[in-house]
Amino acid sequence: MVPTPAARRHQDSAFIRACRSLPVPRVPVWFMRQAGRALPEYRAARGAGSILDAIARPDLVAELTLQPVTRYGTDAAIFFSDIVVPAAAIGFGVDIAPGTGPVVERPFRSKEDLQRLRPLDPEADTPYVLEAVRLLAGELAVPLIGFAGGPFTVASYLVEGGPSRNFTKVKGLMHGDPALWQALIARLTDLSLASLRSQLDAGASAVQVFDSWAGILAPHHYEALVLPATRRLFGELADSHPGVPTILFGVGTGELLPLMATAGSTVVGIDWRVPLDDARRRVGPAVAVQGNLDPALCLAGPEVAAAETRDVLARAGTAPGHIFNLGHGVLPETDPAVLEHVAHVVHTEGVAGVGATT
Amino acid sequence: MVPTPAARRHQDSAFIRACRSLPVPRVPVWFMRQAGRALPEYRAARGAGSILDAIARPDLVAELTLQPVTRYGTDAAIFFSDIVVPAAAIGFGVDIAPGTGPVVERPFRSKEDLQRLRPLDPEADTPYVLEAVRLLAGELAVPLIGFAGGPFTVASYLVEGGPSRNFTKVKGLMHGDPALWQALIARLTDLSLASLRSQLDAGASAVQVFDSWAGILAPHHYEALVLPATRRLFGELADSHPGVPTILFGVGTGELLPLMATAGSTVVGIDWRVPLDDARRRVGPAVAVQGNLDPALCLAGPEVAAAETRDVLARAGTAPGHIFNLGHGVLPETDPAVLEHVAHVVHTEGVAGVGATT
Repeated sequence: MVPTPAARRHQDSAFIRACRSLPVPRVPVWFMRQAGRALPEYRAARGAGSILDAIARPDLVAELTLQPVTRYGTDAAIFFSDIVVPAAAIGFGVDIAPGTGPVVERPFRSKEDLQRLRPLDPEADTPYVLEAVRLLAGELAVPLIGFAGGPFTVASYLVEGGPSRNFTKVKGLMHGDPALWQALIARLTDLSLASLRSQLDAGASAVQVFDSWAGILAPHHYEALVLPATRRLFGELADSHPGVPTILFGVGTGELLPLMATAGSTVVGIDWRVPLDDARRRVGPAVAVQGNLDPALCLAGPEVAAAETRDVLARAGTAPGHIFNLGHGVLPETDPAVLEHVAHVVHTEGVAGVGATT
Repeated sequence: MVPTPAARRHQDSAFIRACRSLPVPRVPVWFMRQAGRALPEYRAARGAGSILDAIARPDLVAELTLQPVTRYGTDAAIFFSDIVVPAAAIGFGVDIAPGTGPVVERPFRSKEDLQRLRPLDPEADTPYVLEAVRLLAGELAVPLIGFAGGPFTVASYLVEGGPSRNFTKVKGLMHGDPALWQALIARLTDLSLASLRSQLDAGASAVQVFDSWAGILAPHHYEALVLPATRRLFGELADSHPGVPTILFGVGTGELLPLMATAGSTVVGIDWRVPLDDARRRVGPAVAVQGNLDPALCLAGPEVAAAETRDVLARAGTAPGHIFNLGHGVLPETDPAVLEHVAHVVHTEGVAGVGATT
């Protein structure tokens, strides 16, 4: 599969080059959840309907995806969607409750529930996703990042029935019925793989896999029960879409970083708990890093956010392979002016890879 | 200050020796929140009243503290109380809402709120605590662990107004008004110090400082904004009560362990995310470790819990200085039979320090 013309157009962009650990003229920046409630233009465009309804409207999705690129001048756009979209699209019965998150009508409990997880046919099940990606790929001046959920995180929603504090049900399944666990994450990995491939075919230039909650696991459990499926996901993606930049992200993953670095992605996302110099040591020189400003500090005013941004840039150093981002998603209460300022500081002061061109 | 007769009585116990990294005949075990809703005898004795009311009844507190020692055969008792008790006792206006946690009527917002944090006079403000400790110290066959909250965690409740997900308000205060932050945690450190000293004087044999949520901070922020107060806490405690074993605990602290190991406690608690062999390397040989079975795995049945218990024991190795515990508190849904089994496995198979006597 060759890159689509849209994706190919961005091959020399700072974002794509940084994902490949190539030198860049300036550190690229984007923000997880940059399209969202922090932006007044988002709230105005979205109105009060369900987020799953919004996701199904390609014109609206394109608008919401573009808004932060215009506002902040980010070096990449993240597709406006949600990691439960594929499961919802095949009829598993998932909604997204405002202020809560995914809510599953009949959580995954037993072998019989596997039947409710048929393969995703992206053209038939999520045509609105593909239409929106195509719209965006034609319009965007920066690369579009497609995304999907990582196997543990999607499984946690389906098994717990929603967001969880202690993840007892999904851990109970992983350890109590390892065969069923493997069958479950095999299907979820296939769902994510099909969705990612379809987004890339429609014009996305890179993809991020959000295994956001994997950090709740001890490293030896992540290694035995989650990493193999994650490796298959990136491996099969590389087979069908060789050379496409891929990012693997989760929070609280300090202990998992050396393992995540072997999953096959070109970039590993780092939350704010691990200093980037440490993170670089843990993932090794072959993998780029993305992060890692604490999103909570963007609520402490522009001076604090700017000082912390400079600290992140300093710890990242001048070696290539750093994409600036927050350590987790933009918080809804964030003042967009602070993020504008952060992006400005990164663009004017971030020099990763510049020193390495010689 | 010499140890009370009750505290002195337990100096050769496995728990106290392990806290001091001395060889022990068998690995000692206790469970954070071992006194609590997982036990039917707790639910029967407690009834439906407010937990702060229960904490103010010495006879009930003594009974609840003893229950898990009898049931599980633990090597230590943890005093039944809550980390917000000192702040509540001086009238800051803190309640504990069932199923939610601490709720603060008027959260800490500005310099004026410092006036609401007067020093604790344990005999006058928390006589019920001292009476219960004295009752227990006379009765217990194992050491009693007193406790207090760590400066960040108590501050987070007072500033956020209750449990928090993103800790934005407390981080905003730390970074936005460092002088007020220092004034706040100085007072909270004094509160905890006064409470811990009074518990030790009344007969507790050791103390644990729960800075449970410190792991939400980046290491350089913990080091600059929390560690100095924590060092003062343990330093002043060592001045007044030399030789008393002390434990510093938090969750998600993988990145903070090398710093926490310098706070002056004799033991550092480890959650389940860091394998104990790694944790030992991070804290160094001078500090004992406590942990670190994932409490969620106690809900996956006795076989899974036993296998994980053996894994913890194996990673802890045979060097002295390991107290077996969970990586966080007992979850309310836990079957007590599983914890009985875990304690049995530790007692029959845990050999830390045995090999080191020669």
